[in-house]
Formats: sequence, C-alpha cells, structure tokens
Amino acid sequence: MAFFPRGEKYLEIITTLKDLKAWVQTTKQQGDSIGLVPTMGFLHEGHISLVDMAKAENAKVVMSIFVNPAQFGPNEDFDRYPRDLERDSKLAAAAGTDVIFAPSAEEMYPRESHIQLSAGPLANVLCGAKRPGHFDGVLKVVTKLFHLVQPDRAYFGQKDAQQLAIIESLVEDFNFPLAIRRGETVREEDGLAKSSRNVYLSETERQEAPHLRKALLLGEQAVLSNEDAVQSMTAYLEREVSGKIDYIELLSYPDLDHNVQGLAILALAVQFEKARLIDNIIFPIEGKN
Amino acid sequence: MAFFPRGEKYLEIITTLKDLKAWVQTTKQQGDSIGLVPTMGFLHEGHISLVDMAKAENAKVVMSIFVNPAQFGPNEDFDRYPRDLERDSKLAAAAGTDVIFAPSAEEMYPRESHIQLSAGPLANVLCGAKRPGHFDGVLKVVTKLFHLVQPDRAYFGQKDAQQLAIIESLVEDFNFPLAIRRGETVREEDGLAKSSRNVYLSETERQEAPHLRKALLLGEQAVLSNEDAVQSMTAYLEREVSGKIDYIELLSYPDLDHNVQGLAILALAVQFEKARLIDNIIFPIEGKN
Repeated sequence: MAFFPRGEKYLEIITTLKDLKAWVQTTKQQGDSIGLVPTMGFLHEGHISLVDMAKAENAKVVMSIFVNPAQFGPNEDFDRYPRDLERDSKLAAAAGTDVIFAPSAEEMYPRESHIQLSAGPLANVLCGAKRPGHFDGVLKVVTKLFHLVQPDRAYFGQKDAQQLAIIESLVEDFNFPLAIRRGETVREEDGLAKSSRNVYLSETERQEAPHLRKALLLGEQAVLSNEDAVQSMTAYLEREVSGKIDYIELLSYPDLDHNVQGLAILALAVQFEKARLIDNIIFPIEGKN
Repeated sequence: MAFFPRGEKYLEIITTLKDLKAWVQTTKQQGDSIGLVPTMGFLHEGHISLVDMAKAENAKVVMSIFVNPAQFGPNEDFDRYPRDLERDSKLAAAAGTDVIFAPSAEEMYPRESHIQLSAGPLANVLCGAKRPGHFDGVLKVVTKLFHLVQPDRAYFGQKDAQQLAIIESLVEDFNFPLAIRRGETVREEDGLAKSSRNVYLSETERQEAPHLRKALLLGEQAVLSNEDAVQSMTAYLEREVSGKIDYIELLSYPDLDHNVQGLAILALAVQFEKARLIDNIIFPIEGKN
C-alpha cells in the first residue's frame, strides 16, 4: 500500500532505550524542539495528520510504535492487534517523521513496576468502565514515553477522547514540561472514523459502520433539542447495525462527569464480530443536569 | 544561628511556577546541569551535606523548600512542622545554593488531582504501614518537582531509607531522565541522626535519643550472629528510652521485603512526646530467610 505519496525521506528506527537516550541528548544539545506522536502502529491517516501537526510545530518528530501490553485486558485483542512495522516505516517516512521508536516489551518493561499510576474517577465511565485497568496501562506507557523522548509537544487524536482527557489531566496534575495537542478525528468519506481495528470489519459490518457517526450527529441534535439522546441513539443503532452496543454516554468534557455544562461529549462503543469500534462528538451546550 | 560559615552568596528565592519555568529554561539553554535537593526546610547539616554533593556534580543547585500537605496524615504534625524560611535562606546561601524554590500549597496544588500515584507494596512496611498515604503524597510532590525543576540529579538522604527506595523505584519504573544520589545520614556527635523534628525533644528525651542509633548497632551485631535482632533491640529500647516504639523491622534493601539477602536494612521509629524519630542502618548480609 502506498497511501501517502510525499516522497521518501531518511528515517531512523530506534529500538533500544540506550540509543533513544543518545538521540534525545544530541537533539536537545542542538536546541531542536521535539514533537512526539505516540501510536500502536498500523498507521492510518489519523496518525499521519498528527505527524503533520507535529512537523509544523517542531524541529524533529518522533513517532513511537508500541503495542502496549499494559493497556490490554486478558480477554482483549493484544495478540491479534495488527502489526506491520515495514509498512508503518514507509508511511511515517513519507510523512516526514524523523525517528520511529519501536521498542520491545522487554525493553519497556524489564521488570514488574513497584509504583502504580491510576486514572481514578476519569476512568469510571465510557471505555474505562468497560476495560478495567486499560487507562492505568495507558498512563504507564505514556509517562515512560514522555520521560524517554522528552518532547516539547505530544499529539493525540480526539477519537480517543477519554484517553486524551486522562492524559491532559496527567500532564496538568504532575506538571509535565510539555504541551498536549489535540488532533481532530480523521474519517473515511462515509463518516467512519479511521482506526487500525477497521481492518477486522466484515464487508457487511463495514457498510453498517458509518451509522456510528450518524447516530452521534442524531444524538447531538437530540441533546440540543432537550430530548433523550441516549434513547434515540440506542433505537437508531439497534435498527441499523448488527454489532452490540457496548455503551452510549453523554458527559461533560474534559471532566467526564454528569454535570454537563460548557462542552459535552457524546461517546459510544459498538462491539462487532472481531472489532470493537469507538467514536464520539464534542460540542458546546447550555448548562443542563 | 550561624551554622555554616562559608561566606554569603547571592541566592534567588523563587515562589511561583512561572518564574521557576523561566529560570529552568534559561539554565537549560545555557547548557548548565541542575542538581535538586528537595527539602521541607528547617535545614540541618544533613540537608547541607546534600547541597555539598549537588555542588560538586552540577553547575546549578536548586533547593526546594515545601512542607508538602499531601504527605501528612490528618493527625500528624503538618501545622506545627517547624518553618523558618529566613534562617533556611541564609544557610542555603552560605552552602552555595543557587535557587530556593519555595512555593505555596496553592501554587503546587491549584486543584484536586484526578490521576493518582501509589507506592504499592513498598509502602506496606516501616513508616508506610504506620502512615497510610504518606508515600503516595511523597511521590506526588517529588514527581511534580522533578518535572518543574528538570534536574540532572536529585539528592535524598539515607535517613529516610524507605522514601529513598520508593523514589528510586519511581525513577526506574517510569524512566525519569535523572539520577538519584544517596546522601549518608548526618549525625550529632553522640550518634543521634540530624532531623528537623529533633527540636521537639524535651531535654530528657534528647539525652535518651542516641540510644536509637545504639540499638541499631546492637541489632546489626545480632543479625550477623544469627540472633533475633528485633527482640534484642526491643528489650534495649524499652529499657533505655521513655518514647514508645512504633516499629523495629529487618528487611531487604532496597526491595523492602522479608527475603533478606545481599543488603539488609534494620529500621526503627520511636514516638516521643512531641517528636516521632526514625533511624536505620543498612549493611551487607549472607542469604537468610
């Protein structure tokens, strides 16, 4: 696949902490700023749009590619999460990435951790409620990546809105010396949010999948008309898709509580045969309870 | 009090995050290394010995002075912990400190944290078992200080051996880009470990207090002779001091478990009328269980 024809470019692939430290030290000594795009690989245009943002704001762009075992539950898709470093390297190079950091699990987790990070109440809703420990694992790897890469800015997509809210809290609560940048969700022409997991959709499911976005737009209208968004969306999705609704929730953003004022998020997850898809919409709202 | 006659020196006192960030940025741009000595103030020779170590290894030395509310329990001595920033500033300046960072609690904790750090099993023994939440509060402030000051090296005294072990784990588990340096416990001539809390000892208690160190030396001999160190030390201290023994424990170091091999730590805490004192001794040992 040759998705992004921007002309190839030299790209350094680093797999050890030692080599990464040396690169970071040299880069800092040169006074170059660093943008970090953390990914689990199997890149799509969503990731590439984050690289574009990072290129515009930083002298050097590092993309991490690491399928982080700490954020997968025992019955989740860690083993069969799609991986293709060669394909990813070409796409990342074409987009202008300077360094791919692709460590092994042993390199990232040489021993059991003593100290634990936990996402607390922000993880009690949406995906966090359905995937116990998931966001603690995200916090762990993101904290390690921030310390290893020492970026000036780090880029996360809004498709994972809860992840974004939790990482923004992490940075604020612990004064990490970097800025978090939000990338808008990149979509297929029919509205389906780009995701590495879309490859697991059957042909029929792929045709149904744009209804997730349509349900969110319907829900937004319902909220703004003081109607029950969750009820309308549930009825709509039960009619239109074969997958099972995992959750549909309306919350405040980024606080993720039920005191919905200012910004609201409507988010949903649908479990198809082999792929669990998520999507969300964030929009301003008058105060409601 | 003029403890350390090294000649005065210009010292900058920074109280806001904004000013600290500006200072750190300038210092980094100059390529100067930074040593951090985190303290709760009311300095004694133990703190100053850490500044000496930091001076020897770094271009700039920052001392933080912050009585961290997050690490005090509801019935502990937060309100009456001794504070004297003017005296501390003179001592720190004389020792060659470049910057004192002395923020308010509002500056450090402008809002409730969402994300939590916890010390896990390392906090289930010694002081951690007696002071629930204490080390979580230590981890919180230390993580914030590391991100704010961005030191190359940070200095902690071995008197707080459990704190040191937990902070070393924090740095290793999360790949903080800095080195932790251990400072040996500084003692009075009669063996009492220097501590800001020693000022709360009555005259009689002050005379008894060197028995803590003596008990540890006795305990070390007992361990090396395959005798019951905790029993000997308990008998000794019950005879020699009026304070109440809070704990006496023999553990491995720095893992703080009961599989004592390689390095052992004997540690104790004694509660006097107004001061709770701790001390420890770390020594090599043959494998025992």
